[in-house]
Amino acid sequence: MIPPQDLVTFLKESDYFLITTHISPDGDGLGSSNALSMLLQASGKKTTLLIKDSLPIQYFFLPGISNFLSLKDYIDSGHKSENLVLLDCNDITRAGIDDIIKLVTFNKTVVIDHHEISKSFGDIQWIAPNAPATGMMIYYLIKHMGVKLSLEMAINLYTAIAFDTGNFRYENTTPEVFRAAADLTEAGAKPHSIYSSIFEKWTFNRFNLLLTAMKSLELEDGFAMAAITKEMFAQTSSSEDDTESFVSFPRILDNLKVSAIIIEIDNNYYRVSLRAKGGIDVSMIAQEFGGGGHKNAAGFRIRTDLDTLKTKLKDKIKGSLKI
Amino acid sequence: MIPPQDLVTFLKESDYFLITTHISPDGDGLGSSNALSMLLQASGKKTTLLIKDSLPIQYFFLPGISNFLSLKDYIDSGHKSENLVLLDCNDITRAGIDDIIKLVTFNKTVVIDHHEISKSFGDIQWIAPNAPATGMMIYYLIKHMGVKLSLEMAINLYTAIAFDTGNFRYENTTPEVFRAAADLTEAGAKPHSIYSSIFEKWTFNRFNLLLTAMKSLELEDGFAMAAITKEMFAQTSSSEDDTESFVSFPRILDNLKVSAIIIEIDNNYYRVSLRAKGGIDVSMIAQEFGGGGHKNAAGFRIRTDLDTLKTKLKDKIKGSLKI
Repeated sequence: MIPPQDLVTFLKESDYFLITTHISPDGDGLGSSNALSMLLQASGKKTTLLIKDSLPIQYFFLPGISNFLSLKDYIDSGHKSENLVLLDCNDITRAGIDDIIKLVTFNKTVVIDHHEISKSFGDIQWIAPNAPATGMMIYYLIKHMGVKLSLEMAINLYTAIAFDTGNFRYENTTPEVFRAAADLTEAGAKPHSIYSSIFEKWTFNRFNLLLTAMKSLELEDGFAMAAITKEMFAQTSSSEDDTESFVSFPRILDNLKVSAIIIEIDNNYYRVSLRAKGGIDVSMIAQEFGGGGHKNAAGFRIRTDLDTLKTKLKDKIKGSLKI
Repeated sequence: MIPPQDLVTFLKESDYFLITTHISPDGDGLGSSNALSMLLQASGKKTTLLIKDSLPIQYFFLPGISNFLSLKDYIDSGHKSENLVLLDCNDITRAGIDDIIKLVTFNKTVVIDHHEISKSFGDIQWIAPNAPATGMMIYYLIKHMGVKLSLEMAINLYTAIAFDTGNFRYENTTPEVFRAAADLTEAGAKPHSIYSSIFEKWTFNRFNLLLTAMKSLELEDGFAMAAITKEMFAQTSSSEDDTESFVSFPRILDNLKVSAIIIEIDNNYYRVSLRAKGGIDVSMIAQEFGGGGHKNAAGFRIRTDLDTLKTKLKDKIKGSLKI
């Protein structure tokens, strides 16, 4: 993968960069932002890292993570970076920076992302839907610009790639991913330690919530559905944040095609996450309930009662499974 | 890693090979056996694959898996291979072939293994305790012997390596592992599909057994202990075979150092598996109960009652955690 020349020229010829990523930041967004900032600093540039949402504690181990400013701190600092770089995201609303855009006049805006483009934001765009992670794009950018891969960059990029490939288990795990992982490990990234930092930081309350939620699992004909009620959160002293990745847990079941998790967020108000394990396009199902997403991961929110929701959802999913 | 010259010469100069691996066969044992058989066949040799235990269904997808003969079929066939190769194992009892050794006179015996040697079996030994998997050793053997890496070999070797590195998450995940994975993926191994075949084939009964077992989890000071009783097996229509990898499940918990699973195999007779997540050497704990294993994975069997066992085990583990 070769970065576009206009992007490389622009990065080389400019001096000040504000770098940010999407809300609900994850390993790819944070890791690639940190690594890009390090690349630019190694090239003598000034960078500022910005993040709308609070940083999840599992990413506190990332070198450079403490450099991220909140929107408030950024505005208070009076800092006006000349160029904006949006990473792992191609929409200012998804980055949560609509207010910043109104407040600051940027010289140029840049988008580096591996998601299909939704809005045509960005004077310079590098969109690579086939890239397994934005971290892979930054990895190639570092190679292309001839900057030495530091240990700090390697940890950030390994985290980005490990996160977005589900630790090398999703369909986007290509020979190039493994070659980059070899290089990053050679540069000092520790696979076991990074895996543990990202995926093995569960509290006992979260563990108990998973067990309680999975006890409610209904399984039939390749379709699994679990519901997490407010009562379960209370019983296990846990919260909605603790449910991250729960929808993927039933993937271990043989012959599973679709997994759904229903989460009660208020009285008669539910958030539903859907995951497909090949075959079905769950974004089509989410759309029927007013939501959206991708082929393998989608979701929606709905005001109704639990029994009605379960019945409707079962019908729709069974319908899709029959096609 | 370079295979020893005496092994390479022997493989080149001999013609008939009987290949086998350890009881309770896993991805590394089966994958490396299949790949070695393919390597030798590609070099014009005759090979026979032998396995003491029945083959777990999750490995039915492996190319060549149907070539494994049971002990009975092997004996009935009257087949007397001249040379024995023991893979991923260095002890005939661990391979379950004591009877075969009495029955058949082998020309030479060969051991290729990445476990520390326990008994000095084997006229020719290639023991590489630093190798992440026996599959890695066979991968280097194929490269060294200049044989083309076929798709069938690649699938078997990828499976071996993915299994023994916990899909690239254990401490043995080195740059060389990633480089081999890149090469094997390039040759056609599909990471997502292999991951799914090995790790996502759970029955609903097994899933329910895990939830039931984990509900019994006791957690204190970095140590987690769960017990699976015969009653739980009955409740969930599951069996001891279904407990594979359960001991690793509590690894997702933050600050966990040791995980223990107690499995009731008969009245007042228990099998205990121990896993460490860095730091503690659980083989020392297992040895105190008459068992053994490695630093991060060990176990033992014991005749006692559950309460006594739990108390003693807690004491020993807490003692180790304090040092």
